[in-house]
Amino acid sequence: MQKPGFKPIDNSQLAVRRIGVGMLGYGFMGKVHSNAYLKIPYSFANPPAWPVLVAMCGRDEARVTDVASRFGYGGIYTDWKRLIADPDVEIFDNCTPDDRHAKPSIAAARAGKHVICEKPLAMTVKDAASMVEAAQHAGVKNMTCFNYRFIPAVRLARQLIEQGALGKIYHFRGCYLQEPGHDPSAPLEDCWYATGTRSGILLGIGSHIIDMARFLIGDEVEQVYAAGGVMVDPEIGRAGDIDTTVITLHFANGVLGTIDNSRQAVFGYDQRVEVFGSAGMVGVSNNLPDTAVVSDAQGVHGSLPLFFFVERYTEAYIAETKAFVACVLNDTPPPVTGLDGRAPVVMGYAANKSYREKRPVKLSEVDIKPGA
Amino acid sequence: MQKPGFKPIDNSQLAVRRIGVGMLGYGFMGKVHSNAYLKIPYSFANPPAWPVLVAMCGRDEARVTDVASRFGYGGIYTDWKRLIADPDVEIFDNCTPDDRHAKPSIAAARAGKHVICEKPLAMTVKDAASMVEAAQHAGVKNMTCFNYRFIPAVRLARQLIEQGALGKIYHFRGCYLQEPGHDPSAPLEDCWYATGTRSGILLGIGSHIIDMARFLIGDEVEQVYAAGGVMVDPEIGRAGDIDTTVITLHFANGVLGTIDNSRQAVFGYDQRVEVFGSAGMVGVSNNLPDTAVVSDAQGVHGSLPLFFFVERYTEAYIAETKAFVACVLNDTPPPVTGLDGRAPVVMGYAANKSYREKRPVKLSEVDIKPGA
Amino acid sequence: MQKPGFKPIDNSQLAVRRIGVGMLGYGFMGKVHSNAYLKIPYSFANPPAWPVLVAMCGRDEARVTDVASRFGYGGIYTDWKRLIADPDVEIFDNCTPDDRHAKPSIAAARAGKHVICEKPLAMTVKDAASMVEAAQHAGVKNMTCFNYRFIPAVRLARQLIEQGALGKIYHFRGCYLQEPGHDPSAPLEDCWYATGTRSGILLGIGSHIIDMARFLIGDEVEQVYAAGGVMVDPEIGRAGDIDTTVITLHFANGVLGTIDNSRQAVFGYDQRVEVFGSAGMVGVSNNLPDTAVVSDAQGVHGSLPLFFFVERYTEAYIAETKAFVACVLNDTPPPVTGLDGRAPVVMGYAANKSYREKRPVKLSEVDIKPGA
Amino acid sequence: MQKPGFKPIDNSQLAVRRIGVGMLGYGFMGKVHSNAYLKIPYSFANPPAWPVLVAMCGRDEARVTDVASRFGYGGIYTDWKRLIADPDVEIFDNCTPDDRHAKPSIAAARAGKHVICEKPLAMTVKDAASMVEAAQHAGVKNMTCFNYRFIPAVRLARQLIEQGALGKIYHFRGCYLQEPGHDPSAPLEDCWYATGTRSGILLGIGSHIIDMARFLIGDEVEQVYAAGGVMVDPEIGRAGDIDTTVITLHFANGVLGTIDNSRQAVFGYDQRVEVFGSAGMVGVSNNLPDTAVVSDAQGVHGSLPLFFFVERYTEAYIAETKAFVACVLNDTPPPVTGLDGRAPVVMGYAANKSYREKRPVKLSEVDIKPGA
Repeated sequence: MQKPGFKPIDNSQLAVRRIGVGMLGYGFMGKVHSNAYLKIPYSFANPPAWPVLVAMCGRDEARVTDVASRFGYGGIYTDWKRLIADPDVEIFDNCTPDDRHAKPSIAAARAGKHVICEKPLAMTVKDAASMVEAAQHAGVKNMTCFNYRFIPAVRLARQLIEQGALGKIYHFRGCYLQEPGHDPSAPLEDCWYATGTRSGILLGIGSHIIDMARFLIGDEVEQVYAAGGVMVDPEIGRAGDIDTTVITLHFANGVLGTIDNSRQAVFGYDQRVEVFGSAGMVGVSNNLPDTAVVSDAQGVHGSLPLFFFVERYTEAYIAETKAFVACVLNDTPPPVTGLDGRAPVVMGYAANKSYREKRPVKLSEVDIKPGA
Repeated sequence: MQKPGFKPIDNSQLAVRRIGVGMLGYGFMGKVHSNAYLKIPYSFANPPAWPVLVAMCGRDEARVTDVASRFGYGGIYTDWKRLIADPDVEIFDNCTPDDRHAKPSIAAARAGKHVICEKPLAMTVKDAASMVEAAQHAGVKNMTCFNYRFIPAVRLARQLIEQGALGKIYHFRGCYLQEPGHDPSAPLEDCWYATGTRSGILLGIGSHIIDMARFLIGDEVEQVYAAGGVMVDPEIGRAGDIDTTVITLHFANGVLGTIDNSRQAVFGYDQRVEVFGSAGMVGVSNNLPDTAVVSDAQGVHGSLPLFFFVERYTEAYIAETKAFVACVLNDTPPPVTGLDGRAPVVMGYAANKSYREKRPVKLSEVDIKPGA
Repeated sequence: MQKPGFKPIDNSQLAVRRIGVGMLGYGFMGKVHSNAYLKIPYSFANPPAWPVLVAMCGRDEARVTDVASRFGYGGIYTDWKRLIADPDVEIFDNCTPDDRHAKPSIAAARAGKHVICEKPLAMTVKDAASMVEAAQHAGVKNMTCFNYRFIPAVRLARQLIEQGALGKIYHFRGCYLQEPGHDPSAPLEDCWYATGTRSGILLGIGSHIIDMARFLIGDEVEQVYAAGGVMVDPEIGRAGDIDTTVITLHFANGVLGTIDNSRQAVFGYDQRVEVFGSAGMVGVSNNLPDTAVVSDAQGVHGSLPLFFFVERYTEAYIAETKAFVACVLNDTPPPVTGLDGRAPVVMGYAANKSYREKRPVKLSEVDIKPGA
Repeated sequence: MQKPGFKPIDNSQLAVRRIGVGMLGYGFMGKVHSNAYLKIPYSFANPPAWPVLVAMCGRDEARVTDVASRFGYGGIYTDWKRLIADPDVEIFDNCTPDDRHAKPSIAAARAGKHVICEKPLAMTVKDAASMVEAAQHAGVKNMTCFNYRFIPAVRLARQLIEQGALGKIYHFRGCYLQEPGHDPSAPLEDCWYATGTRSGILLGIGSHIIDMARFLIGDEVEQVYAAGGVMVDPEIGRAGDIDTTVITLHFANGVLGTIDNSRQAVFGYDQRVEVFGSAGMVGVSNNLPDTAVVSDAQGVHGSLPLFFFVERYTEAYIAETKAFVACVLNDTPPPVTGLDGRAPVVMGYAANKSYREKRPVKLSEVDIKPGA
């Protein structure tokens, strides 16, 4: 139908650099990442650049088609080898379960795709090492998804530490307490095996705060002492994992760190870090869903932290995907590297060994020498 | 080029209800609303529904084309009469300057379009009344954009008051302090005339807190006393407006209110409300850009409130457009009506008269009887 | 009995300057002040000086003896004329009910005693004026007990304003909300008459925030507009007072102020002030009984403000009496003067007139010219 | 001189139970305790009871006389054996340096005096054990001064845990960071020897948070792992102590704890605890000197925590001495026992051994069996 005065815009003629995204995985994180690409502001690059959702890949054709169509993907694949062969795919986004990250990421890097992969990077130190090496060898961009680094308060904390505003740093303190029921991506059956195919408390949720410690301190951990127990749910114990841990970190530069992890936080989702230096300290606390405070005859009441990490960190996921697209666009190093993904895997293994052997463990005891 | 294994998705075949949006205005608020429609989550309606950006309209073809293409509009118009004649447009979104709201909104309603219009609704009580009547007569949906009603803390506060959790309400307190330099949508030349064609402090920024007072108390103001002066910038005084005001509100139900407005807030953008009742009080404070707190030898330091209303209320604008699309979709009443837009115009005029005549003024002194 | 090695200390030989206090009133405030004198740290002056509780005075010999003995007074009087004739009394502390302040304070000043008197200074502008003049004429120290000036946060706020840290000041905001039941010194029968012998809401609790406004802004109010009503308790209305007020203050220097007062605050005892300037703002909020915060499945919960003003402001009362003793000791001007006591009486009357006549009232309409 | 109408009060005839206090030590803590006895409210007991400051004891007659006279002591001794022989002394308050606590406390208990002793109780496990046994054998009241137990927020936290409001407890977290320069009682020369005659970081400031952990969890620690280092001041290292420690606590009931201690906190005096349970968590944070918050163009600024423990915990010291006087008066058990003083000594030794041997250490490795 003709519409008087209407001047159509031919989108395909716009001078926009389009960056093709191929998504492996249509589950929870696949949706989170897909949404994040769509929410990157149009004006983020100059000249303009848009990520284009080329294809989503998964084994169940009906389900992957359903999810892909809701996010506007151009099409789907049911075989990831086909996805990484697609010439329109520049960015390979790996949102598979933790124990299936390695093979497709390595193949995609070898096929010349830039690789962004969810955390924990791998279930074994060996896999993590291979993934890092494959990307390095292929010369592609390679990023591990530690979305907390993109939380504004965390960035501000790192900036202050780098600028020396806190003086000489001597202590890191962090916690990550989480109710499994609050987080649909972390059903018990998926995450409690400490030594099995899925990431337990030390490799899984623990990796977030391990990454925060490395990122904020800007140094490597040499030794850990992990205490822990089954304090929350006997089922977790029967499955071979623990639900409560306290880890002491010994950094190479002498800084001490403490990390608390728990599968229990009935009051929400408790993720806080503090860094202490000779000139001051910075604390990052939980963000809240609203700023309302109610005072009544019983006390002063505020809302609980945002329970579910997706709504809590929506903006962090957008910032994360934007950062990766930008580093592909501008050929700059990614803000979180494959090595950053590898380090918490080593540390998770060392912590696990410390817990089982009831003694401090050096990371060199469990690490694989690069090239070995 | 053929891609082995690639199964394309034909987007046009998806069972999605598409709702056409026609945008009048390509300036600041036009961009904010356009962005908000794009960010409405795909899954917000069941069966699925998507707003479609049909056309943007503005007099300068080159500039409107530039803006429209960045948001993916299908095309543009340079004459708003053509825009409201477009059969694909269901929602007419009016983002013109404050003093040009009336005519297009009335015409759009008469053309059977659902009308969403920025605040303040109009520059005169008469215009505001005509706009409300046109929409009522045409039976279209009609919403005024008071985005603060969509802030989570404000919604929670209203809910508590409605549920009686605060008992019998007796006092409202609110403030809106804003540095003009922080807000690109409020250059001085656009907003300081109290009695001219643009909205001054009492009609303009004042309308937000006036709306909060009516929304939270759930009752109408009968009388106001406004004090004020030029405390910040003599230029504002020379232009005929004031930059600092204190308004006492007398509600019909006996509740008392106080509103402070200022064009000065070097520390950010200060918008807080408190409501007091026999069983408690609720306060809504400023939201912050981050949760970092730094302690050093000088004190304990937090970040300033988010300065710029667009980044501060991004989510509120998305919730607002989503709510209007939903009420069109489901044929339900809009959460903020044309009458809600009209009331602050009447109150702004009464406050202005009170300030000039140095006495309390009843709203009935300045209002137009419906139908008069 | 002799005690080997024991060397007694002869207290009367110590080189300590003893300052005799005569207390009129053994009720609530009499106890608060007596306790405050005892808690002044021994080391506050150099050379050492101690206030000595010479005598307490009240008409009921048995009751005044009972109270006086608990605080270690040397003796009692039942006639205040005898108390002010006691040569050991240097400081006359007037803790009688509000409507009986004038006569003894004037007589004590004429007898050469330094006079400290509870707020509100008097029930009439005329009495307040006479009290100020008597002290000025006699050349004695004269202080009105506005204890809030001795709260650390208030002192800090005043200091910042004086130093210019907030720039040019343009707005004051304050509130005083109080449950009568929480405060044994304010039984309803004692305080609700706005125009009777006792101080109503505008003269009584209102005087605290009026004093804060004058103290923090450092200027005089010229005009007030008071709105109000009976929103809390019909009994208060039947007794001729109101229980809720909102006052707009017009300062001589152009600063605007808003004061809210209420006889209702089920959540505690709500006394907050905020001052806004061109370079920043300072807020003073309620102090809390503890720093514990509990998070459970319902939310984040803190304790209510300290309910009862005596435990909340114990330290402020000690600082207040210490300041008066120090100004007697060092012959310096008191930090709160008789004129500071007189001003809120004038303002309370003007606010009352404004409320009754429903119009802004200039203070000059109700004031007595000095010397008239 | 006769004073007409004056009726003296004969203080000695009042029906007051007087409890004699003998103070050993006239240094910093001797003054703090003396002041606390004087500030116990007169009405705390019914029938009335007053602590009476009988005598202060110290070797330097001139200096002890000077201090004693400022607090109103009846006299002085220069030999503590004479002090504990004084029949008027009921309470023996031991404020000597940490390494001289044992002998006088043991002797006083044998002489039938009730003994209150500053923390840390002793410098060796053996001394601590002997002190506890002496008091038990003599049947006197015996209290160790852990003043933090008397902070309102800590009491509230313990109460909530006891009531089960937090469910099953699984984690304790605490810190104690202190600038030596801020605290006149802790000059470097007095406190940095970990193994010498004075208490180092693990026995000294560490004992406060160790006590908090035991008090709040209500259970005993079985094993500790301590990491640490010299991060702040090389002088501390040269003197044989460390200035930064992280201790992992393994409680008998399975609860895990973490304690951070540091001799550095340029931002004040940082003492916080958190306890986590299956139904919620409670946090106790630093109390502040005022409630003022300043917002300017740089940010939002609050005051630092109260730096100096005496002004910060004045009320806690009063509550502590009051509690001991009350338990003597009413023949009830003291709220903090000798055993509570002994436990942190054992734990401090175990932590020290863990730090030196770089392995977890069971308390039973360093403890002395009662009776051994």
